[in-house]
Amino acid sequence: MSQSDTREKIITCKAAVAYGPGEPLVVEQVQVHPPQKLEVRIKILFTSICHSDLSAWQGENEAQRAYPRIFGHEASGIVESVGEGVEDLKEGDYVVAIFNGECGECRYCKCEVTNKCEKFEVNPMKKVMVGDGKCRFATADGKPIYHFLNTSTFSEYTVLDSACVVKLPAATEVDLIKKLTLLSCGVSTGVGAAWNTAEVHSGSTVAVFGLGSVGLAVAEGARARGASKIIGVDINPDKFIKGRALGITDFINPRDEEKPAYERIRDLTGGGVDYSFECAGDVDVLRDAFLSAHEGWGLTVVLGIHPTPRMLPIHPMELFQGRRIVASVFGGFKGKTQLPHFAQQCINGVVKLDEFITHELPFDQINEAFQLLIAGKSLRCLLHF
Amino acid sequence: MSQSDTREKIITCKAAVAYGPGEPLVVEQVQVHPPQKLEVRIKILFTSICHSDLSAWQGENEAQRAYPRIFGHEASGIVESVGEGVEDLKEGDYVVAIFNGECGECRYCKCEVTNKCEKFEVNPMKKVMVGDGKCRFATADGKPIYHFLNTSTFSEYTVLDSACVVKLPAATEVDLIKKLTLLSCGVSTGVGAAWNTAEVHSGSTVAVFGLGSVGLAVAEGARARGASKIIGVDINPDKFIKGRALGITDFINPRDEEKPAYERIRDLTGGGVDYSFECAGDVDVLRDAFLSAHEGWGLTVVLGIHPTPRMLPIHPMELFQGRRIVASVFGGFKGKTQLPHFAQQCINGVVKLDEFITHELPFDQINEAFQLLIAGKSLRCLLHF
Repeated sequence: MSQSDTREKIITCKAAVAYGPGEPLVVEQVQVHPPQKLEVRIKILFTSICHSDLSAWQGENEAQRAYPRIFGHEASGIVESVGEGVEDLKEGDYVVAIFNGECGECRYCKCEVTNKCEKFEVNPMKKVMVGDGKCRFATADGKPIYHFLNTSTFSEYTVLDSACVVKLPAATEVDLIKKLTLLSCGVSTGVGAAWNTAEVHSGSTVAVFGLGSVGLAVAEGARARGASKIIGVDINPDKFIKGRALGITDFINPRDEEKPAYERIRDLTGGGVDYSFECAGDVDVLRDAFLSAHEGWGLTVVLGIHPTPRMLPIHPMELFQGRRIVASVFGGFKGKTQLPHFAQQCINGVVKLDEFITHELPFDQINEAFQLLIAGKSLRCLLHF
Repeated sequence: MSQSDTREKIITCKAAVAYGPGEPLVVEQVQVHPPQKLEVRIKILFTSICHSDLSAWQGENEAQRAYPRIFGHEASGIVESVGEGVEDLKEGDYVVAIFNGECGECRYCKCEVTNKCEKFEVNPMKKVMVGDGKCRFATADGKPIYHFLNTSTFSEYTVLDSACVVKLPAATEVDLIKKLTLLSCGVSTGVGAAWNTAEVHSGSTVAVFGLGSVGLAVAEGARARGASKIIGVDINPDKFIKGRALGITDFINPRDEEKPAYERIRDLTGGGVDYSFECAGDVDVLRDAFLSAHEGWGLTVVLGIHPTPRMLPIHPMELFQGRRIVASVFGGFKGKTQLPHFAQQCINGVVKLDEFITHELPFDQINEAFQLLIAGKSLRCLLHF
C-alpha cells in the first residue's frame, strides 16, 4: 500500500484495543480516519510500553477510565499523510511521537524555562482530539475508540496533533529508528532530567532512587555529563547489573541495612550528593532522596508519579538548609524544538540507547510485553509490526 | 574613654539582660571581656529588634531557652578592638553585625550558590562563643551571660566572631550608619530574597504575603529591580499605607473576600505572578503563595519562620505544574563578601531605607520598643546609646 493510495482515506489496520481495566488488550482491525487540520497520520514502526500505559491499562485512576481505548505513547514511525496547515512535516518523514506536545504559540511555548504547553501538555484525562473533540479511531463496525495521551501508538496507524510529532534526522536507518523510539518518553525523561532540569555537571555526585528505565536514563545522562559518582538505589539487586553498564558506580539496597539510604549516601559522598532523582513514585523514597542531597546546594528532582493523597514529607524549615526540590516533566525538553538535536546526539553515541532495549516482540504479542513489564523483567520491550 | 584605654581589658557597660521567658529585659551594668582569637569587640551605635528576638525573648522554643542572656542581632557600631588573627577589621571601623556569618574557609563559603557557613550559620541554639565555648559577657558579680545568634547586640559593647562582622564603606556618616543598621537582618533578608534568591527581573509580577519589615523589603527590592506589579497580601490594611511607599502596587486583604488570595492574584495577573514570597510563617499562607505563582515558571520563596510541626502543604504532583519553591536565608547574601557592595548601593539610594525606621528610642527604653513590635506599630525601632 503506497502512501498516495491512502491519503484522505480511512485506513483499516491492526491495533491493540483496551475494553476494560486490566483486561487483556484485543489485537483487532480498526479504522483510522485521515488527519484533520494540523494533524498528522503516522505509520508506526516501533512502539513500546511504559509504566504510564500500564497504570492506565490497569485503570488505577477511575476518573481516567474510558473504553474502548488505544493506549501507547512511546513510538517511532513514518508520516503517512498530513492534515491542513501542517508545514513542518511531510509524507515519508521519520518521526517519534511525544505525549508532551509543543504548539509553539502559547505563553509556555514562548517561555524559555518551561516545556509545558497550554494546549498539548500531558493530560491523562484527554481522550479525544483537541481540534474537534472527536476520535480518529473506530472499531470495524464504526464505534469510536478513545485516544490516550495525545498519542495512542498501539496501532499500526495513528493520528496525532502535529504538535506531538517530532521529526528525526533525515538519513536515519531503520535500526536507528528502532532505538530512537525510546526518545518518545523514558530516555528523554531521564536524560533530560539530568541535563536540562538538574544540569548535572562534570565531577558532581548523583543519587538515583528507582532503577527502572527512567532512573537508568538519569544515570546514563549523568554519566554522559561526567558525574564522578552515581549511586543507584533500588530494592531489586538485579537492577544493579544493568545499572553498571549505564553509569551507576555504587549501589544501595535499602533493605540491606537498617541505616536509612540517605545516611549511607551521605557517608559515601562526604555529606550528600549534588543531585538526587526520585524515580519511584513513593513519598517516603522522595524524603530519602531529599535528605540525601547536600545541604547548601543539593537539588532533588522528582520524576516519579505519586498517586496517593500524601503530601510532600518535607517541613518548610528544612528548605532553609539550602536543599531544593523541583519536578521534571519529559526531562524539560521542548519536544519539537529540542528533541531533534537530542536525537542527533544519541545517533552520535553521546547517550547509549541499546542497553534499554531488553526485549523485542511482534506487535501481536503486546499482552506478553505487558507481563514482562509487570514482572520487572524488561526495561523496554519494542513491539514491531 | 578612648579605644586604646580599653583594649585587652574588661569593659563594664550597659546591656539589656533577659532573665526568663517574656520577663521584661533588665537594663544593667555588665562586664564585656576582650575579644579572643578571630573575635572582634564592637561599640554598638544602633540596635533594633526583629521578630526573631521577640520569639526568643518569649521563649517560644523551650529547647532554645538559656538565661541570663543578651538578645539582639541587628546592629551597627564601631570596632573597639580585635582579637588575634583578625586581619580584615581594625579599631575604628564602622561595621554591622550579621547572624549568618561567613568564615570564608568552609565548603559552603567556597561554593558560589549558597550563603550557608558551616561554622557560623544561623543557629538559635548557640549560646556561647564558637572559639572556646565560653561567654564574653558576665553580670556585675561575674556570673556568665549567654550569647544569642552569634551577635548579642542589646549591649553597649559586644563580642562577635569576625566572621559575623561586616565592614561598612569608610567615609560613612553617623546618619548613614543608623540606616545601615537595617542591613544586619530585615532589609538584607527581604531585598536579597528578591535580588539573589528569586532574581526578580524588570517587568515581572510579584506577590508578597505578610507585610512586616521583611515583606516590605522584598517589595522594595522588587521595585528597585523594576517589577511591574507588586501585590501585597496582609490581613492588616494599615500595612498598605507603608507598602505604597515601598513599591506595593496592589493590596489584597484575604479577609475582604471569600475568594482565596491566590485566585485574586491570578485574576490580577492573568494566571499568576512570576515570583511569590511567603513572609508570614504560616503554612496555609505558604500554600496560597505557592498557588499564586504562575504555572510553568512561577517561583515561591519561603522567608517565614514556621514553628509548627506541619509539613509543606504541597502534593508532589503539584510540582509537575512547573511551580518551584525555595527558601532564602539572609537574602542569599554572603555577608562578608557581598554586603559591603549592598551597603554602597543603599548609600547610593538604590534601595530606600528611611521608610523602615518608624521609631527611635534611647536604649534604656528597649522594653517599650518590644511592645511597639508586638502591637504591630513599628517596622524597625532604632535604639541608640
